[in-house]
Amino acid sequence: MGFVPLIESTRGGLVECQHWGAVAVANRDGKLLAQVGDPGAVVFTRSTIKAFQALPFMLSGGAKALGWGAADLALLCASHNGEPMHVEQVERMLASVGKDYHALRCGCHRPLFAELGLGSLPADFVPDERHNNCSGKHAGFVAFCVQQGLPLDDHLDPGHPLQVAIRERVAQAVGLQPGDLAAGTDGCSAPNYALPLANLARGYARLAGGAPDTEFDESFTALADAMVARPELGSGTGRHDLDFMRVGEGDWVSKTGADGVQVVGSRSRGEAFALKVMDGNMLAQVAASVEVMDQLGWLSDTQRAALAPRRSARIANARGREVGTRRPAFRLGSGR
Amino acid sequence: MGFVPLIESTRGGLVECQHWGAVAVANRDGKLLAQVGDPGAVVFTRSTIKAFQALPFMLSGGAKALGWGAADLALLCASHNGEPMHVEQVERMLASVGKDYHALRCGCHRPLFAELGLGSLPADFVPDERHNNCSGKHAGFVAFCVQQGLPLDDHLDPGHPLQVAIRERVAQAVGLQPGDLAAGTDGCSAPNYALPLANLARGYARLAGGAPDTEFDESFTALADAMVARPELGSGTGRHDLDFMRVGEGDWVSKTGADGVQVVGSRSRGEAFALKVMDGNMLAQVAASVEVMDQLGWLSDTQRAALAPRRSARIANARGREVGTRRPAFRLGSGR
Repeated sequence: MGFVPLIESTRGGLVECQHWGAVAVANRDGKLLAQVGDPGAVVFTRSTIKAFQALPFMLSGGAKALGWGAADLALLCASHNGEPMHVEQVERMLASVGKDYHALRCGCHRPLFAELGLGSLPADFVPDERHNNCSGKHAGFVAFCVQQGLPLDDHLDPGHPLQVAIRERVAQAVGLQPGDLAAGTDGCSAPNYALPLANLARGYARLAGGAPDTEFDESFTALADAMVARPELGSGTGRHDLDFMRVGEGDWVSKTGADGVQVVGSRSRGEAFALKVMDGNMLAQVAASVEVMDQLGWLSDTQRAALAPRRSARIANARGREVGTRRPAFRLGSGR
Repeated sequence: MGFVPLIESTRGGLVECQHWGAVAVANRDGKLLAQVGDPGAVVFTRSTIKAFQALPFMLSGGAKALGWGAADLALLCASHNGEPMHVEQVERMLASVGKDYHALRCGCHRPLFAELGLGSLPADFVPDERHNNCSGKHAGFVAFCVQQGLPLDDHLDPGHPLQVAIRERVAQAVGLQPGDLAAGTDGCSAPNYALPLANLARGYARLAGGAPDTEFDESFTALADAMVARPELGSGTGRHDLDFMRVGEGDWVSKTGADGVQVVGSRSRGEAFALKVMDGNMLAQVAASVEVMDQLGWLSDTQRAALAPRRSARIANARGREVGTRRPAFRLGSGR
């Protein structure tokens, strides 16, 4: 069985809900350290690969040439809330190559902080491309195309030189060949790739811990440094990635992907886990991630206490009465 | 394996998400007609048993004594939107026994139409007990207690005579003994019961098709008549139960329960299905329900077309581009 119950909730002591998934833990060399379910399960990576999608731009020296700092690099890797701090930073990134949000091809959606119930918007609010949670990644795409003299209109087509280069770098980052990656279209219209959880974990172990044997070691270090330095730009107010990064105190590189994907790498350990909840339930994804870190021995007592609310263990009803509990349903097995 | 993938979604042709569950189809005699996964899976019934929870009140002649009509009986069984039509009807029900919403013990939550994203509320809106989706059921509880001279304050306690009577009737309705039911507390603080899907289906086959061998035949007919006569009161604007009831043209008695439960009975066939999506995903619950009805041969071409949007088959991204599809992953097996 590829997927197993990771999180379950109870009512009256009986299991009422279950969330199936799988987890892989790997180090930088690709050694599988632990797993639940099938660590080879092929899953769409969604926003977790944003740092890898930035590699052609980083390796070309594009970010350095523009003098982009931690805030810009954090936005390259962000699934941001569309708060003013995010929108303004993306505007600055685009302006640095003489463009504005009309060059973005990511489409528009209501800012994530409103979609996730973390805040409200004026009734007459109309989102544009800057508010798309991926607009930082797309600003990087635009900057690369401008610098390289590549056409902008079709820069999300899988055959565009930027996307061809990204596919190669994504594969390389996770220890695969470009032809190994299954492809689809992401919510922001960029090509996205599916690959085994264990490879995604390996990619994050390298992003977080360094990849000294590769040409992208410096890029990974710069991106991971930026992600941990400016976590509020990578996600936003109230988001669990921000919580994880702060509780991790600079050691954890945490990134969520749509539809139940979560990756966290430990910089000091040079290892990472990749997790998929198959039904896409975010409460379960976050609760399972805290449990994985706990079982891996990553959590101090202080960190365990700080993350306790992210387990969403207490299930209360309309009168605030506890009617059940949400709890982990798995034990990590040792790598095989 | 008790639960199997019922609905899956794809991206780039690859399965990206899956929703596990089980389905039982039964007739009024309790004969299992078809299933997917384990039809004996014990699940919390949540709001699907509201019609059964009304049995002590109905059997006592309480509704008749108050002159309650289809609108009132539909509200007894409702998980309503908290729209003005629902709130006003509940007020009338309570007023008919000289009470108001202060007698309700269901707690308060934001009206369901706002919670489900079907409409918006003024920023300063404060819900009270009338807006609770279960307030009609609770109005029936209050009416019964007033008529029977039972205490009101503790009328949701499992040991209160009303709740003891309800437990007996719920068990009887589905063909079990009271001691067979696992118990928990519902979102509205009423006791709720867990029982095998096949028994829940049997209960709905009787509710929809009649139970001539039982003392509650007349009550079931009155409740089912009311549910199909006033489906807008049983759920509300934009809700799938309303859609199902309208497309069913009086033949289908459809009721959703929280956390992925769905039951639909066919009055003409005297059979029903009960379905549970274990992760509680409502899109999957509704899509799977349409597929069950289709596989059972309940759908005319017109009905199939009318329900097609409820399959939520098209998965579009921020630019409206189709990036994947949601589809059934099961075939009903014949009863065993």
